Amino acid sequence: MRIPPIHIEYPDWVESTVDWDRRYTTDEEKMRLAIDLSRENVVRGTGGPFGAAIIEQGTGALVAVGMNSVVRLNNCTLHGEMVAFMMAQSRLRCFTMRSDDGPVYELATSCEPCAMCLGATLWSGVSRVLCGAHRDDARRLNFDEGPVFPESHAYLEARGIEIVHGVLREEANAVLELYRASKGIIYNR
Amino acid sequence: MRIPPIHIEYPDWVESTVDWDRRYTTDEEKMRLAIDLSRENVVRGTGGPFGAAIIEQGTGALVAVGMNSVVRLNNCTLHGEMVAFMMAQSRLRCFTMRSDDGPVYELATSCEPCAMCLGATLWSGVSRVLCGAHRDDARRLNFDEGPVFPESHAYLEARGIEIVHGVLREEANAVLELYRASKGIIYNR
Repeated sequence: MRIPPIHIEYPDWVESTVDWDRRYTTDEEKMRLAIDLSRENVVRGTGGPFGAAIIEQGTGALVAVGMNSVVRLNNCTLHGEMVAFMMAQSRLRCFTMRSDDGPVYELATSCEPCAMCLGATLWSGVSRVLCGAHRDDARRLNFDEGPVFPESHAYLEARGIEIVHGVLREEANAVLELYRASKGIIYNR
Repeated sequence: MRIPPIHIEYPDWVESTVDWDRRYTTDEEKMRLAIDLSRENVVRGTGGPFGAAIIEQGTGALVAVGMNSVVRLNNCTLHGEMVAFMMAQSRLRCFTMRSDDGPVYELATSCEPCAMCLGATLWSGVSRVLCGAHRDDARRLNFDEGPVFPESHAYLEARGIEIVHGVLREEANAVLELYRASKGIIYNR
């Protein structure tokens, strides 16, 4: 028996919506991109209200974006952060974004990472994480965040990953509320 | 800019090695399959010493297998369990393996899941997890398991997921030792 290869690709709107040449230098600019992706994913009906981006620190160059694709691609692992990690590493042709002499990379995510994405953040090699909405904001929609504890964040920080919480939280949360109002699917509730 | 789609496929040896028609009914049979996959991955040089399988409870039918594919596919998220979840859901055409009236699914993994895989286990919809090697066995090779705590397992168990530790632990650990002896890559150390 052969299981066919899995294909992971962006929804069509990414091509026409994302400005790949722009530089994202401030934390707010990086987060607004993640939030814009989360909103677009809801409005276009391509997934849950979560967006993410990987940006090169210093230059502000955009490496990859991600958006929740669980339902669209029938794959429970495809949270926004996971899609962003996969696409970034595919583009960089390397399984880690951490090196002794190369660029440093940041993740901007429209909502605090769930347990899976927090673990993947460690393996991804990013050095800094910007979070928009709080996990409690997601929980109000019955999106479970899984086994994440205060010591989970401390574990990453002890390994040199800076985590910044609540960047443009209100704007990020507004997309969660938009999703709730539009009666979007709450999978894995 | 377009990032090409990501393709996730098994290494060639899966086709000729895995017996898809066999029924895996005991915990030891399920675990031995996961361990065989982990060993084959080392011997064939296609990845880290970790294998996994998804099996339908009751019938013992094999749904999907997985093997660590991080280095092979330049993708930090592709631990053995993650590949197994993705392939199973691709085959079942559903983003969860849990339903009110459908079959119940189990994960057998040759080593206790890391933080990412434990989170994904919750989202996957499997109802039972069989673990071979202990996380300390992996740690002796400098494979980090990430932020996993006793309460992480309790979190899953509280949501109806049974976790069985130490199934054929010695056999599973022997593959880790084989990998160490063969000086395999310890990524993300």
